[in-house]
Amino acid sequence: MGKDDFAPTPPMGWNSYDYYDTTVTEEEIKKNADYMATYLKPYGYEYIVVDIQWYAYGTGTKREEYQYLPFSKVEVDEYGRLLPCVEKFPAAIDGKGFRPLADYIHEKGLKFGIHIVRGIPRISAHTHSKILGSTKTADQIADPYSICPWNPDMYGVKEGVEGAQEYYDSLMELYASWGVDFIKCDDIAHTKLYEDAYAGKNEIEMIHKAIMKTGRPIVLSLSPGPAIIEKAWHYETYANMWRITDDFWDQWELLKVMFERCEIWQMHKRKGCYPDCDMLPVGRVGKGFLQERNTNFTKEEQKTMMTLWCIFGSPIMLGAELTKLDDWTKSLLTNEEVLSLLSNDFERKQWKREEGEAIWITHHKKTGKRYLAIFNLSDNETIYEWKKIEEEFGTLVREVWTNQNVNIEQKEEGMKISPHDVKLYELLG
Amino acid sequence: MGKDDFAPTPPMGWNSYDYYDTTVTEEEIKKNADYMATYLKPYGYEYIVVDIQWYAYGTGTKREEYQYLPFSKVEVDEYGRLLPCVEKFPAAIDGKGFRPLADYIHEKGLKFGIHIVRGIPRISAHTHSKILGSTKTADQIADPYSICPWNPDMYGVKEGVEGAQEYYDSLMELYASWGVDFIKCDDIAHTKLYEDAYAGKNEIEMIHKAIMKTGRPIVLSLSPGPAIIEKAWHYETYANMWRITDDFWDQWELLKVMFERCEIWQMHKRKGCYPDCDMLPVGRVGKGFLQERNTNFTKEEQKTMMTLWCIFGSPIMLGAELTKLDDWTKSLLTNEEVLSLLSNDFERKQWKREEGEAIWITHHKKTGKRYLAIFNLSDNETIYEWKKIEEEFGTLVREVWTNQNVNIEQKEEGMKISPHDVKLYELLG
Amino acid sequence: MGKDDFAPTPPMGWNSYDYYDTTVTEEEIKKNADYMATYLKPYGYEYIVVDIQWYAYGTGTKREEYQYLPFSKVEVDEYGRLLPCVEKFPAAIDGKGFRPLADYIHEKGLKFGIHIVRGIPRISAHTHSKILGSTKTADQIADPYSICPWNPDMYGVKEGVEGAQEYYDSLMELYASWGVDFIKCDDIAHTKLYEDAYAGKNEIEMIHKAIMKTGRPIVLSLSPGPAIIEKAWHYETYANMWRITDDFWDQWELLKVMFERCEIWQMHKRKGCYPDCDMLPVGRVGKGFLQERNTNFTKEEQKTMMTLWCIFGSPIMLGAELTKLDDWTKSLLTNEEVLSLLSNDFERKQWKREEGEAIWITHHKKTGKRYLAIFNLSDNETIYEWKKIEEEFGTLVREVWTNQNVNIEQKEEGMKISPHDVKLYELLG
Amino acid sequence: MGKDDFAPTPPMGWNSYDYYDTTVTEEEIKKNADYMATYLKPYGYEYIVVDIQWYAYGTGTKREEYQYLPFSKVEVDEYGRLLPCVEKFPAAIDGKGFRPLADYIHEKGLKFGIHIVRGIPRISAHTHSKILGSTKTADQIADPYSICPWNPDMYGVKEGVEGAQEYYDSLMELYASWGVDFIKCDDIAHTKLYEDAYAGKNEIEMIHKAIMKTGRPIVLSLSPGPAIIEKAWHYETYANMWRITDDFWDQWELLKVMFERCEIWQMHKRKGCYPDCDMLPVGRVGKGFLQERNTNFTKEEQKTMMTLWCIFGSPIMLGAELTKLDDWTKSLLTNEEVLSLLSNDFERKQWKREEGEAIWITHHKKTGKRYLAIFNLSDNETIYEWKKIEEEFGTLVREVWTNQNVNIEQKEEGMKISPHDVKLYELLG
Repeated sequence: MGKDDFAPTPPMGWNSYDYYDTTVTEEEIKKNADYMATYLKPYGYEYIVVDIQWYAYGTGTKREEYQYLPFSKVEVDEYGRLLPCVEKFPAAIDGKGFRPLADYIHEKGLKFGIHIVRGIPRISAHTHSKILGSTKTADQIADPYSICPWNPDMYGVKEGVEGAQEYYDSLMELYASWGVDFIKCDDIAHTKLYEDAYAGKNEIEMIHKAIMKTGRPIVLSLSPGPAIIEKAWHYETYANMWRITDDFWDQWELLKVMFERCEIWQMHKRKGCYPDCDMLPVGRVGKGFLQERNTNFTKEEQKTMMTLWCIFGSPIMLGAELTKLDDWTKSLLTNEEVLSLLSNDFERKQWKREEGEAIWITHHKKTGKRYLAIFNLSDNETIYEWKKIEEEFGTLVREVWTNQNVNIEQKEEGMKISPHDVKLYELLG
Repeated sequence: MGKDDFAPTPPMGWNSYDYYDTTVTEEEIKKNADYMATYLKPYGYEYIVVDIQWYAYGTGTKREEYQYLPFSKVEVDEYGRLLPCVEKFPAAIDGKGFRPLADYIHEKGLKFGIHIVRGIPRISAHTHSKILGSTKTADQIADPYSICPWNPDMYGVKEGVEGAQEYYDSLMELYASWGVDFIKCDDIAHTKLYEDAYAGKNEIEMIHKAIMKTGRPIVLSLSPGPAIIEKAWHYETYANMWRITDDFWDQWELLKVMFERCEIWQMHKRKGCYPDCDMLPVGRVGKGFLQERNTNFTKEEQKTMMTLWCIFGSPIMLGAELTKLDDWTKSLLTNEEVLSLLSNDFERKQWKREEGEAIWITHHKKTGKRYLAIFNLSDNETIYEWKKIEEEFGTLVREVWTNQNVNIEQKEEGMKISPHDVKLYELLG
Repeated sequence: MGKDDFAPTPPMGWNSYDYYDTTVTEEEIKKNADYMATYLKPYGYEYIVVDIQWYAYGTGTKREEYQYLPFSKVEVDEYGRLLPCVEKFPAAIDGKGFRPLADYIHEKGLKFGIHIVRGIPRISAHTHSKILGSTKTADQIADPYSICPWNPDMYGVKEGVEGAQEYYDSLMELYASWGVDFIKCDDIAHTKLYEDAYAGKNEIEMIHKAIMKTGRPIVLSLSPGPAIIEKAWHYETYANMWRITDDFWDQWELLKVMFERCEIWQMHKRKGCYPDCDMLPVGRVGKGFLQERNTNFTKEEQKTMMTLWCIFGSPIMLGAELTKLDDWTKSLLTNEEVLSLLSNDFERKQWKREEGEAIWITHHKKTGKRYLAIFNLSDNETIYEWKKIEEEFGTLVREVWTNQNVNIEQKEEGMKISPHDVKLYELLG
Repeated sequence: MGKDDFAPTPPMGWNSYDYYDTTVTEEEIKKNADYMATYLKPYGYEYIVVDIQWYAYGTGTKREEYQYLPFSKVEVDEYGRLLPCVEKFPAAIDGKGFRPLADYIHEKGLKFGIHIVRGIPRISAHTHSKILGSTKTADQIADPYSICPWNPDMYGVKEGVEGAQEYYDSLMELYASWGVDFIKCDDIAHTKLYEDAYAGKNEIEMIHKAIMKTGRPIVLSLSPGPAIIEKAWHYETYANMWRITDDFWDQWELLKVMFERCEIWQMHKRKGCYPDCDMLPVGRVGKGFLQERNTNFTKEEQKTMMTLWCIFGSPIMLGAELTKLDDWTKSLLTNEEVLSLLSNDFERKQWKREEGEAIWITHHKKTGKRYLAIFNLSDNETIYEWKKIEEEFGTLVREVWTNQNVNIEQKEEGMKISPHDVKLYELLG
């Protein structure tokens, strides 16, 4: 079983970051898992991912000043391995780690994921902690010149020194023993420190090897973006998904530029390999960032986002607080026909992209089903002549989001698309 | 029939540039075609391509000073379309163009190609020549700010102005009427003028459209490189092959760096779409450059080159003067098992690339045949432990270039690879 | 007499571009000269400069489509030297060139300048015109790969070939014979074509040499910017002024960013050497651009501009149509105390520059006079504590623009500066 | 007294780095001081500078693996201030710091300098040490994202937070109390971490302010290079010297490229402001780098180096082990006429620089003395016609290095300059 088998379809799930930032607790994770099990699992959603700094104390205090407290206390074992902070994850007490929480989630038929930052804790290096399975110590494998430019917790691990692979082996062994199914590794798909933006290359390989040794099918997700297109082959060899943009949020400009990123990466999706458009900041988001709000995206923009993610074939990780999902948002996220486009049986391609529009087409290799998405990226309504569209793409049968068949009256009017909106049509086979 | 059908397998053939530079004549083309028909056609070689400045007078005079004479006479019709210079191509007389030469080549069962440079002749713009099928004139479609940085003959054609598509339509119509099967368009895959290295984008689309209108399956090959990986989707949509490096010559450093380019482009080869490693400068080359010589590559380097081109799946365009091919070179170019790797039925991938080595593997999707190529890119002999290699890749059956089965004595010695050499093994299925 | 003696103080004058674009005529030039002689000469203004394409026919026709008509008729002599288009400059008839116009201007006690674009006309190269004083022809000295990226008229002149210096010698000889006092050479201070932004280096040297040979003290002004700070020594060796920004217009963002440019170039002004902030787009501008208007700058912004140009020591070239100057603008341009800061006897320096403010100080090496300019670059009023300012810079005596002495009541209130405005104080000596 | 008064002429002295790397001891410093006082002080040499990691334990152990041991012991006081490691500097015992060593050096009529790296020790941040004169602690002023890319000891200090200026004040106060006369601050003139290469800007200002508060005229020298020419005004405002190249060593290519750097910086030398070409690696160097050797420079190259440093006006810091200086090297470093060119009374300029040659001229503003240096940067002997040289520069009187008058016989032969050599002539006034 190779790493491609760990993610036979684009991973779907939920991630704590967009709502909780660094502050999420065991109880909050469980409530979101409860919701997913009941309402979203039937549509394919299954991953519950605890994002950054679950190991850190005092997270969210001094939030105006810092996202990540510098030089503050983290929970770490004698081998330099981070453990859950028991203030936020009380069930982790007595060295149980995330095992109890993972069990809870597994019992609901879901999968459990965690976020890590590439490397070994800085404090472990400065205190020369031991490495499990090695005679080396943390100061010997930590690279003092390899830091994350936005999180202060870790040093990168050196390439080709004794103890380095052993450290990652011990880390993945521990996380596998907890029942982790998904690892989102940060500061690694694009390292923003020196000129070499792919300085995490060797650590990607070490983590991959360590995962394979555990025997557990742990999905490996790499962040942050933008992933480097020249290295596509490397991501595809060692990981399951990789972020193709920097952090995505509910701003139209970021959504618009995603079309450029999807254009570049459109040919790189296949079983086990998923260019990743990042979490969908829908519903309620921003609490941990001191900006709790409904998403700033309009409904049109949210449809555009959901359509792009699906027709491109991105993983679908929800950023919303699930327990607060309104009906409209829930319907957005659970449109079965739209979600069906994620299947690896669809071949997809961007037909064109201009300043104010983008067009994608896709067809199912087995059923022959074909879809056409026309995105209005401009700030004005656009009107297409039906005739021209059908000459180029064939007969349009039905608009998917409205589930309305195309009729003759419409065709006389012209196809109108609101600003930032999308029309997704099934085409005659 | 789409453009992918025009090149169902990687194009194989001969190009006049490496030996003749700008000076090749009708007679010389014919002699190379004769040779190919007799000796190379059985192995798949079929294209005879006349490279740059077949339309120019005085080519090769003042060669120490200029590769391309500036502001000199070119043969051009009243519609700004370049015609063969009759001094070099006497059969072109009376407006016959390349029709007679193409006929000669077709009669031998071969295909005929020509080189063009993006745009319309500068002189046509300055003299306001007519555009066939349009009321516009050359000065109205020529872009005075779009020049080729190394050839002085042309101005680029503007985007979105009346007369532009008509010009390219008239050009392709003319060339199709001659019987052209292959167009190598230059100054277009990477325009090196301003910061936007892909300023030829619209002309690629115009040329593609013009070709499709002719109804003739003309292969479209784009130069020079390096092609831009972010635009891979665009090359793949509109062209059949595109150069992934700048001009390739018989220098080890250029061959070594090709491994980096192949790494980047390895996932982009499929039917109708071929990243192009450029001509193979083997045998006799350089006459038109005032440096006639045998290739500077050693035999080991030539095997490395041929193996890489085939396992990567590049087009195979020969740079040698064919009539002077020695036996060893001919055997290099006609090894049927090596050439078989070009098939689109092989899946291929770079396994690793380090400073001094590269490893590629490939397997046939239908027959299950598997091959392993181990390249020694260092300046010293390298020795591999057989055991380690076989643990990683499986049992090695036979070395392809020597056609020798692997035996036990060899395995005890270790696998030795000379500097710059390659071993290509069939693996146990 | 060296080239530094040609411009002992920062050149002051008027340039036709901002109002007329390419369309200015002899009559219009004369009227502006008349105005200058009467109203501005007493304050130091003396140059009347005819900007781009005085040699071209049809300028301003098809203005919506083109600023510069491509491949159109230009007036050029048999030696490839551009002459005034007689449609616009009737006195130039019979080969008189600009001599009559220069005479007119000299009689008024003013100086005459013209704009040229680096190189030799494209049409002269394509028609192989002669070079005066050389056996070479234009095609032999024109560089077919050296064009201006925004004006279609010229090819650059090659370095180190026979005939090149002769061409520039003949050009400057002709222009000196007309009585030209000032040459603004374009496409040369920053060539924007290939990666080497200083590809005009050799032509700068050739033009300088040609000027020196004429024996006439012609000021050499280089455009466009941004000049390259690493080449400061080269500009200073061969030219009198060089543009430190790209084209400057009446937009606040361009004015704001000029502070960044002045910061970089602050130490490079001395006798004969003037970093150039470009023309001042005040009063009526834009007619030739089909946007005739009063300047978009507010009065505060105009004071900021005038103060910066003077305290930095830039040439002062007016962009306005002089005959339409209103009183306020005239007073802005003729404040003698502000203009006095241009003197090379002042030492000047930027004290600080932050997002919303900039502070410059200057003192006169002989008289000891000191001035302080505080610029509010933010969009809000700023208030300074007088005490802090005076602790840092000494006692403030008088605000120059208002000519008001500083009094105690003011000091209690705080120093208020409106958005985009400036306060210019004389300091106690 | 401003900072320019601290270095009225280009600083001259000795630095421990080129010979000792990180390992220099008190005894070794003293011996070099003894030598300088006796043999070099009469020529203007006066600074004795202890270079990097005088505070670190175990320096030089594991030298094959590390230049700087990561995460190892450093001597630091309770306020995060580094102190001399007593293993290397025994007189520093009992908190005496460098006071005893400075006293020793001062008694010899010399001046004492130390090297520091921008920032506060990492270990002080991780242990939350106090800041003298502030209620803040090291973790609050250390920037976890600001590290030196090649030395693992420090974190940068944040801008604009309470405690930051206090830290630098306390540091300079301590060093002033020891009698430090010269501070070479590293990782600050060009920070090579993120895209902003001038991220040390605020720390330069803080250190400058802290120095001014001490009341002691401490020269501030900034490393490493290349300094950023756009920031010339900032270096000149806050520092006395700044490195215009990356580390300089005894390799011809590095010396050759120094001409490019000197070209760029030629106009930026004046009293108190010295672009710095780095130490001169002459005599015995390299011991601490495990490569003890005589300089790799030939005698010609050393003359070229010494001539360039002097005619450009760089500080002259010797890299040699002084006690091992041979007579020839000593004569090279103590040629009074060559050293006289360092005077700020000379105006200097690069006349030209081509691939194989560079020419500099200089003249004394008061005495009118003029010198001409002709450097042969090529690998072949070059011969100049005397006549041409004298036409351009005037009569050549005497070659300075050989102290030979120019005579007629020589002039007939032509001026021959050996590869990599220089001729330095006095010109007729």
